[in-house]
Amino acid sequence: MTGVRVAINGFGTIGKRVAKAVQAQPDMIVSGVTKTGPSHGCALANRYGIPLYCTDDSPDRIRSFDGSEYSVSGGLSDLLSVSDVVIDCAPGKVGQKNHHTYLEAGIKHIFQGGEKHELTGISYTSCSNHSQNLGVMGTRVVSCNTTGLARTLVPLREVVGEMRVECTMIRRAADPGDSNKGPVNAIKPVLKVPSHHGPDLMTVAEKIDITSLAVAVPTTIMHVHAIVAYLPSGHGLTTADVLSIWENTPRVISMSGSSDGIPSTAEVMEMARDIGRPWGDLHEIFVWSDGVSLDGNVLRYFQAIHQESDVVPENVDAVRALMDIEQDWRVSVDITDRSIKESFS
Amino acid sequence: MTGVRVAINGFGTIGKRVAKAVQAQPDMIVSGVTKTGPSHGCALANRYGIPLYCTDDSPDRIRSFDGSEYSVSGGLSDLLSVSDVVIDCAPGKVGQKNHHTYLEAGIKHIFQGGEKHELTGISYTSCSNHSQNLGVMGTRVVSCNTTGLARTLVPLREVVGEMRVECTMIRRAADPGDSNKGPVNAIKPVLKVPSHHGPDLMTVAEKIDITSLAVAVPTTIMHVHAIVAYLPSGHGLTTADVLSIWENTPRVISMSGSSDGIPSTAEVMEMARDIGRPWGDLHEIFVWSDGVSLDGNVLRYFQAIHQESDVVPENVDAVRALMDIEQDWRVSVDITDRSIKESFS
Amino acid sequence: MTGVRVAINGFGTIGKRVAKAVQAQPDMIVSGVTKTGPSHGCALANRYGIPLYCTDDSPDRIRSFDGSEYSVSGGLSDLLSVSDVVIDCAPGKVGQKNHHTYLEAGIKHIFQGGEKHELTGISYTSCSNHSQNLGVMGTRVVSCNTTGLARTLVPLREVVGEMRVECTMIRRAADPGDSNKGPVNAIKPVLKVPSHHGPDLMTVAEKIDITSLAVAVPTTIMHVHAIVAYLPSGHGLTTADVLSIWENTPRVISMSGSSDGIPSTAEVMEMARDIGRPWGDLHEIFVWSDGVSLDGNVLRYFQAIHQESDVVPENVDAVRALMDIEQDWRVSVDITDRSIKESFS
Amino acid sequence: MTGVRVAINGFGTIGKRVAKAVQAQPDMIVSGVTKTGPSHGCALANRYGIPLYCTDDSPDRIRSFDGSEYSVSGGLSDLLSVSDVVIDCAPGKVGQKNHHTYLEAGIKHIFQGGEKHELTGISYTSCSNHSQNLGVMGTRVVSCNTTGLARTLVPLREVVGEMRVECTMIRRAADPGDSNKGPVNAIKPVLKVPSHHGPDLMTVAEKIDITSLAVAVPTTIMHVHAIVAYLPSGHGLTTADVLSIWENTPRVISMSGSSDGIPSTAEVMEMARDIGRPWGDLHEIFVWSDGVSLDGNVLRYFQAIHQESDVVPENVDAVRALMDIEQDWRVSVDITDRSIKESFS
Repeated sequence: MTGVRVAINGFGTIGKRVAKAVQAQPDMIVSGVTKTGPSHGCALANRYGIPLYCTDDSPDRIRSFDGSEYSVSGGLSDLLSVSDVVIDCAPGKVGQKNHHTYLEAGIKHIFQGGEKHELTGISYTSCSNHSQNLGVMGTRVVSCNTTGLARTLVPLREVVGEMRVECTMIRRAADPGDSNKGPVNAIKPVLKVPSHHGPDLMTVAEKIDITSLAVAVPTTIMHVHAIVAYLPSGHGLTTADVLSIWENTPRVISMSGSSDGIPSTAEVMEMARDIGRPWGDLHEIFVWSDGVSLDGNVLRYFQAIHQESDVVPENVDAVRALMDIEQDWRVSVDITDRSIKESFS
Repeated sequence: MTGVRVAINGFGTIGKRVAKAVQAQPDMIVSGVTKTGPSHGCALANRYGIPLYCTDDSPDRIRSFDGSEYSVSGGLSDLLSVSDVVIDCAPGKVGQKNHHTYLEAGIKHIFQGGEKHELTGISYTSCSNHSQNLGVMGTRVVSCNTTGLARTLVPLREVVGEMRVECTMIRRAADPGDSNKGPVNAIKPVLKVPSHHGPDLMTVAEKIDITSLAVAVPTTIMHVHAIVAYLPSGHGLTTADVLSIWENTPRVISMSGSSDGIPSTAEVMEMARDIGRPWGDLHEIFVWSDGVSLDGNVLRYFQAIHQESDVVPENVDAVRALMDIEQDWRVSVDITDRSIKESFS
Repeated sequence: MTGVRVAINGFGTIGKRVAKAVQAQPDMIVSGVTKTGPSHGCALANRYGIPLYCTDDSPDRIRSFDGSEYSVSGGLSDLLSVSDVVIDCAPGKVGQKNHHTYLEAGIKHIFQGGEKHELTGISYTSCSNHSQNLGVMGTRVVSCNTTGLARTLVPLREVVGEMRVECTMIRRAADPGDSNKGPVNAIKPVLKVPSHHGPDLMTVAEKIDITSLAVAVPTTIMHVHAIVAYLPSGHGLTTADVLSIWENTPRVISMSGSSDGIPSTAEVMEMARDIGRPWGDLHEIFVWSDGVSLDGNVLRYFQAIHQESDVVPENVDAVRALMDIEQDWRVSVDITDRSIKESFS
Repeated sequence: MTGVRVAINGFGTIGKRVAKAVQAQPDMIVSGVTKTGPSHGCALANRYGIPLYCTDDSPDRIRSFDGSEYSVSGGLSDLLSVSDVVIDCAPGKVGQKNHHTYLEAGIKHIFQGGEKHELTGISYTSCSNHSQNLGVMGTRVVSCNTTGLARTLVPLREVVGEMRVECTMIRRAADPGDSNKGPVNAIKPVLKVPSHHGPDLMTVAEKIDITSLAVAVPTTIMHVHAIVAYLPSGHGLTTADVLSIWENTPRVISMSGSSDGIPSTAEVMEMARDIGRPWGDLHEIFVWSDGVSLDGNVLRYFQAIHQESDVVPENVDAVRALMDIEQDWRVSVDITDRSIKESFS
């Protein structure tokens, strides 16, 4: 087993998914994952046969695993010393401190969308700016929402050129495995107007001038985006052309609400469970084909985002960009997705 | 007790509220309400001291009340014969048939937003086209959503002139008293794109070119609109000016999510319950003041709509328009709202 | 305006309701309510015409109202000095400290069910132990759940004698005006087994040996109790007899899920809104008549509890007990309920 | 590929899961599955490489697949003619008609818990009455709820003997992939009291006298049972003994809400997703270890039921019973579960 040695710092919702996706790749191995203490989540690392390390280097923390069912191979520094690149899947806000550690260790590093663009000064989305990320020291894979916007808007922009976009994000209030957050029966607008969500796309994609509004609603399974895109006049496209562009775009799925029997995010996720990926994940962005309407220069559509997993394959591609082992994003995406697919069938 | 004799045909969610609001007016009396059969809802008519009639004229239907706790004074025709105007609060789709009945009886009539504009050829919103409705034979009070749009957009248009608007409607899935509808845990887009909701505004308001997208979410209490309005250049307004326009607009309330402690529709409805109207209703459209942002020519804001009640006072004003007893909409609104307020304090 | 001067310390969910209920009584006046600072909730005190005081006596706190829209008449001590009894509606856990203040001030006091029985050593429920509370210095009105259990179980026990009861409580996760709490899509058992909820009944009612289990579910409007009561053999009752006992019990409503069209708590609360009390409250415990089954000695039934309001009239009765102005609980209940009813019709 | 040829009639929520579980077995093959028409669900059969048949034999229905992406090998009769046993996974109520078909075709058959016990006169649960089902012509695998009760109560009864049980079932309102059902914000009691759910256990297990009450709540992921079991006096067990009995019971998982961080069904299902079965299924019944309390003769505990999947392995075992290929239920369970486990790792 050879390949790029990938450390995963943090083994929660995103970290466990990224670990499994990296394990499936032919050109990478997971050198280790970290946990703060000997909790229930460690069992999964054992099941995957991945070496476990402590999230930090303090001897006290490391000793906290003694006498538990789980044994660690050392602290974060030990893990970094046997790795080529680290994917930071720690909860938001820890990034600043971790960034310092990675720079000191001289290791390449990938953050998640919970961190700010300014931390690394460069961000990543497979379909948009893979080539800009080739060989860089550190980057940030953008958030689930930004990834979703890039997947459907960037291929359009490549065809029609500059666009202006308004997006309303209807966001799930809590993840499926989280019983603490609400609201139970309310709609909660994000009162910072416009919201930060949409413009984050501009950190990875040029020529898309986007603004967004956001609300949180009592559901756990997916975000939905209601998108209004103003195409340049003379674009020459029909609604069918737009659907056809997305059909040829990796990691975008388009199905009909009415004829495929998928009227809501409930049925989208059920379709995803049928596909059979671990956790019932949907790496693809889902577009309702019968909800797409191009009227003159104005394109309107809905897309659904599986907030727990759409960024997972992006992290794999980002490793290839940083390690400069695959220059063509489409090739990387193809290897990533095929390897994941083969690993679970 | 004198005044315009108002029949209310249908005594459900809207009918019962309209009845109570009409009862509070100095220039109207409720001549009667209708029920299909001797159900639990009849008790409320009795409590309000309003004569009860059967929804239709068939002797069988009328006789179905015999032996129940509730007695009726006759069928629909009997009610119409002692009334000057009828407010149709029947469930959607019955309108066509009822329209025929009203025309035959030669009685003025007001439908709700569940019916199409084409039924009457004219629609009604207090703040927008009261004067057009003076003396007409029949009209349609627009839906809760359209009423909400009219309340905040029309006063703006009066200041700045022609506008183009995009609205995303995040709709409650079921009313609070309804345990049949879902979804429990999903977001359901309205796949007719654009949706019919926004453009309905153009049946009552000129010079507002509006398009909308809509989703249903698992909450019962309010709709929320995320609105992007493009003001004409040279409008000369600031965000504070916009808030000030709404402060001077009847039936619009603006409060701060952060400093007033109203981050979601849950707290909006709690504030409404504190006001103390029957059913905890909120006749006003609620705008989060700290969610309003005017950036160049683009105005963005969120508003919340109490779907069960915002059209209630509009129906009262519509009576005054049709009966031609008050030509100035602001005067009518003032009488309506003050009378309602006095009736419950 | 004369009568017992009732101070209400805390003006939130319970406090505002108790204030309005006390205001409706012929033999009481609200001497004042307290707020921590000049927040949005103060507006309601103004609307009710009730003097406002600061929750504590520190000059800094009191001064925090200066320059706001709300003016206070002093601190808590000032309020207590012009009152005969204080109803403590502060959030849970503050009770201990407040108890000390009340004892020092020598004022009679009533706590809510969030405090422990041990704080006062005596608890209160109108239908169960009013006479034991006559003239005491301080008491605790039991929680919404315990009040609900007392309402239906005590009148039964009076007929049949000693009972053993198992209750499963399906609890609402958050109040309607609260958008912070979850879960959005889960059932959360109370893992302290048996739970503390049921046995609290034994602080106010003898000869009912009760145990309970509890879960929280994603709804905001009501708790539901699934109750299994073991009547003594030879009880001689039928299911109809049980229903008849509850018909003659104040503050218990029994309706049919099927024939009255009330299949769930959604329709129960809609019925309550029709009654027209402020906030759409339901002071009564709701029993589904077609869900009551007495099979041999085993009685099974469901009841729904409006957690925001069922204890409100109990607080009014408790004032009469402590001030020793009405010895007969049924007379007090009758005055309380009739006065409330008249105040809003 | 040899083995018992298993037809699966109906390929929805249960059918697709049973098909995948049967495919994993060393001694069975899936001879085919049925669909009513060429819908989206057919894709899954293709992906699994399972022959597709039409749900009935009418030439019109069969022809409806012509020209679609999906081709069928014939009608139901054709499928039965190449099968040894059929597992009926049709929606409830179709059972009666299908039963007739199976009897005419002379094929062994297994129904699901949506059908009545009377249809086959015998029911099935692996841990309770496997031996009674050896070689029978037809049986019914009991519902998800009954299966859950059998899993934890039968092993207890084997130790302590006869028991009396009261169970309150807090049921999910809709499955995760269903966006039609409600309620959104209510608790809905099953007003047939006692409910039919608990007593269904007595169709597979002797000496457990059980009664139940049920409510539906707005969640999609699991049912929860609140159970009170009265053990015979002199049972000699401690709470730890009970937990130890369940540890040695197949298809029961016990974890701690507090120390394992699993306070609600949200975290239970997240743990299940970590295990990695298709659809994130949990075949096991989940018991909160810190929610188990044995007090004298009264045992109280909570268990959570994954309604979509707990009966899946039971269907596999039922095939072995009917075909008389494995007499010992524990051996069958071991083969079933090990084969499923190996198939996805």
